[in-house]
Amino acid sequence: MVRLGRGQSPLGYAEAQAPRFVRELQEFVRMPSVSSDPAYKQDLGRCASWLASHLRRIGIDSVRLIETEGHPIVTARIDVSPSKPTLLIYGHYDVQPVKPESAWRFPPFSAQISGGHLFGRGAVDDKGQLFAHVKALESWFRTQGGPPCNVRIVFEGEEEIGSPHLRPFLEKYRQELKSDGAVVSDTQMRGPGQPALTIGLRGKLAFDVIVDGPAKDLHSGSFGGAVRNPAEVLSILVSGLHDREGRISVAGMYDDVRVYSLTERRRMAKSAPRAAELFQAAGVEEGWGEEGFTAYERISIRPSLSINGISGGHQGPGTKAIIPAHASAKLSFRLVPDQTPERVADLVTKHIARRCPPGVRCRIAIRESAPPVRIDRGSSIVKSASHALERTFGRTPVMLPSGGSIPVVEALDSLFSLPTALMGFALPTDALHGPNERFELKRFHQAIEASIRLLDHFSRTAGRLR
Amino acid sequence: MVRLGRGQSPLGYAEAQAPRFVRELQEFVRMPSVSSDPAYKQDLGRCASWLASHLRRIGIDSVRLIETEGHPIVTARIDVSPSKPTLLIYGHYDVQPVKPESAWRFPPFSAQISGGHLFGRGAVDDKGQLFAHVKALESWFRTQGGPPCNVRIVFEGEEEIGSPHLRPFLEKYRQELKSDGAVVSDTQMRGPGQPALTIGLRGKLAFDVIVDGPAKDLHSGSFGGAVRNPAEVLSILVSGLHDREGRISVAGMYDDVRVYSLTERRRMAKSAPRAAELFQAAGVEEGWGEEGFTAYERISIRPSLSINGISGGHQGPGTKAIIPAHASAKLSFRLVPDQTPERVADLVTKHIARRCPPGVRCRIAIRESAPPVRIDRGSSIVKSASHALERTFGRTPVMLPSGGSIPVVEALDSLFSLPTALMGFALPTDALHGPNERFELKRFHQAIEASIRLLDHFSRTAGRLR
Repeated sequence: MVRLGRGQSPLGYAEAQAPRFVRELQEFVRMPSVSSDPAYKQDLGRCASWLASHLRRIGIDSVRLIETEGHPIVTARIDVSPSKPTLLIYGHYDVQPVKPESAWRFPPFSAQISGGHLFGRGAVDDKGQLFAHVKALESWFRTQGGPPCNVRIVFEGEEEIGSPHLRPFLEKYRQELKSDGAVVSDTQMRGPGQPALTIGLRGKLAFDVIVDGPAKDLHSGSFGGAVRNPAEVLSILVSGLHDREGRISVAGMYDDVRVYSLTERRRMAKSAPRAAELFQAAGVEEGWGEEGFTAYERISIRPSLSINGISGGHQGPGTKAIIPAHASAKLSFRLVPDQTPERVADLVTKHIARRCPPGVRCRIAIRESAPPVRIDRGSSIVKSASHALERTFGRTPVMLPSGGSIPVVEALDSLFSLPTALMGFALPTDALHGPNERFELKRFHQAIEASIRLLDHFSRTAGRLR
Repeated sequence: MVRLGRGQSPLGYAEAQAPRFVRELQEFVRMPSVSSDPAYKQDLGRCASWLASHLRRIGIDSVRLIETEGHPIVTARIDVSPSKPTLLIYGHYDVQPVKPESAWRFPPFSAQISGGHLFGRGAVDDKGQLFAHVKALESWFRTQGGPPCNVRIVFEGEEEIGSPHLRPFLEKYRQELKSDGAVVSDTQMRGPGQPALTIGLRGKLAFDVIVDGPAKDLHSGSFGGAVRNPAEVLSILVSGLHDREGRISVAGMYDDVRVYSLTERRRMAKSAPRAAELFQAAGVEEGWGEEGFTAYERISIRPSLSINGISGGHQGPGTKAIIPAHASAKLSFRLVPDQTPERVADLVTKHIARRCPPGVRCRIAIRESAPPVRIDRGSSIVKSASHALERTFGRTPVMLPSGGSIPVVEALDSLFSLPTALMGFALPTDALHGPNERFELKRFHQAIEASIRLLDHFSRTAGRLR
């Protein structure tokens, strides 16, 4: 084992280089890599090239930029010894959209530092967390000539749009990517100073509901009262997706939802955030949701359905006296074991079709899907991540399911049976997906430390290539 | 009486100058005078100046451009003889918004001519109809040295936003504007070649419903299922504004609605458009609305409520996994005698407040209001308009109430007790307020002819200044 203490160790190097690491992360965050908007396509390409060059610069000579039909994947393999285990590190360099920009304290791609935080879209989701692993690898390269185990890198640019081209990539490069464990840092901690390992992710099914009415926008004086209004029909359709008990009112929705025993729920409740904590992080005074479940259960072990956007008719300032020709809403389910996106897509399509009134046409367009996953707590990689977090934060990480979705985890499991550790460094207050997303610089450095420690522990304890 | 036949008569002049009149109307339509959008404020000013200069050029030397807190009013007085009656001509040079521009065959301010129609926002509502009166006056000036009666001109730039500064103007210039009748050309014909005089207008109450939820957009994985979604609450609020019988479900909404006798309804049904005609003009296969009333009754003698726009959360391409912090809808009532906008505003405000669920905040912002009006069929100006239409189209105009709203009509009635003729030249197929608004060139010339004839008839038959 190499010395992990201060001095000419990886940890000492990381500490000494901290200010430069932050400047590099700023450069990374300044690239507007919004994967869902075609207007940013070139920026995604530039961001991927920057990342590939950066990996080469820190000493990795096998970096490849793999083009897909969408945005490129940056991949690399570092082979140190056939007797050592192999760790797959996954991250994503794409980010969520930023509108409305007016809600941001600093421009979303300015990577401004203020009050010990780096502000910017992607600061923590996921550029900051991805980059922590990159800087951990650099620290190993610069002090020890390389990491203590073999490493496979997969940095993709389509996580925020459901990773549509990741599975074909994993299938094609199955041989090269063969590993003994994977680490994904794209989840949250339990709270400040309280590390967590995520042991479950909800799946996702994103779709649009589109209502088409008159051939063109109509004068609402001349036709108001005699013609079906698509915006009103849309409202009726989407407002009817929950019942009065907060349950999703799509027939069959709960058929495949796994039921947890009271014992399991009690155990989870011990380490889960309280409702008040969640509401404070959300900035709401009061919660809402499915009756019979706690706030935390509602966002982790129960499915949910959110309207992510709704749009129709006049959008600008002022008034416009029309009956709009169209209206549409963007919605997404979060799914839990043992639901499948395919079955739920079928159920909701039928639900909408049955409720579409005469005088308009209603349809559904599926945009993204990912199945839910459960994590094996007993794997080497989870044990190494737990050790690394405990040493870094001085506290045993809690193990909790999370409400988010990361398509790669299910793919690694179903394709390679590869155990994954979800070792996240975001806080609920970091405004992921919202305006003023941020990452605390202290936590960025802790993430680097945890990654350095993870590599060390995994190299010493994990089994070799299966 | 001056000779109205062809030759050196006003009608002959109008016929000879027709191509130039069209070119001038194109110039007028090319000015993007969207009153509801602050971005066009300067364009409104330029359009008003252009109109004022144009009036001066055709021989009117008393033109004034009156600044308001909003957009300017162009006004003029032409005094030919104290023994002659005075006609007030009203029109508006502002137009509706144009988005989405992609739905237009030609750019909305290009004033392209195609298939005998001039395409463009404002082509018929109301620049084309306003300009017909201007060209009628020009025809009188150029052939007879001036119109056959005294004229007052009021061309405003805020009709499409509810004429918020018109009433103070009318009050201030009450003396100068004293007239014996008013003509407003901002309504529709019964059909191609079938003239109409509108004998009633619905009132209007436009308002926004705004729902505020979390302090910022939230990650829908981390919070979905445990936090009230403002876009869903908005959907619930606006979808609940009609009951299953198509009635507006705001308590007290129908208390003041005038009940028509079966005899009146039968008489109206004789000349009113059939449902199939309305649906064809709307481009819908099937109607909708209040049970127990015909399609035409629903848009004329019954109140209606339309969602004009709805907006919240992610609006761009692709997906965004958020619970939006806010959502809002733009709505407008059309009101009928004896409803008042004030009372209805009060009712709907209470309706929304009562239905706002915990976890979000709901509010209403009133944007525009205008009371409904009925027109006196027996006035001199209505008789002159009827005569002019009959001579121009070879058919007696039908007299029907309309679904639209024109704030000036109620103001002229309540302030000056001034009888008004609503002599419109639009067709239901002219796409008023929608994309591809257009005005048939033939109808533009017929409108000029009707205005020339109206001035003549009114000057010979109407009583003098009261």
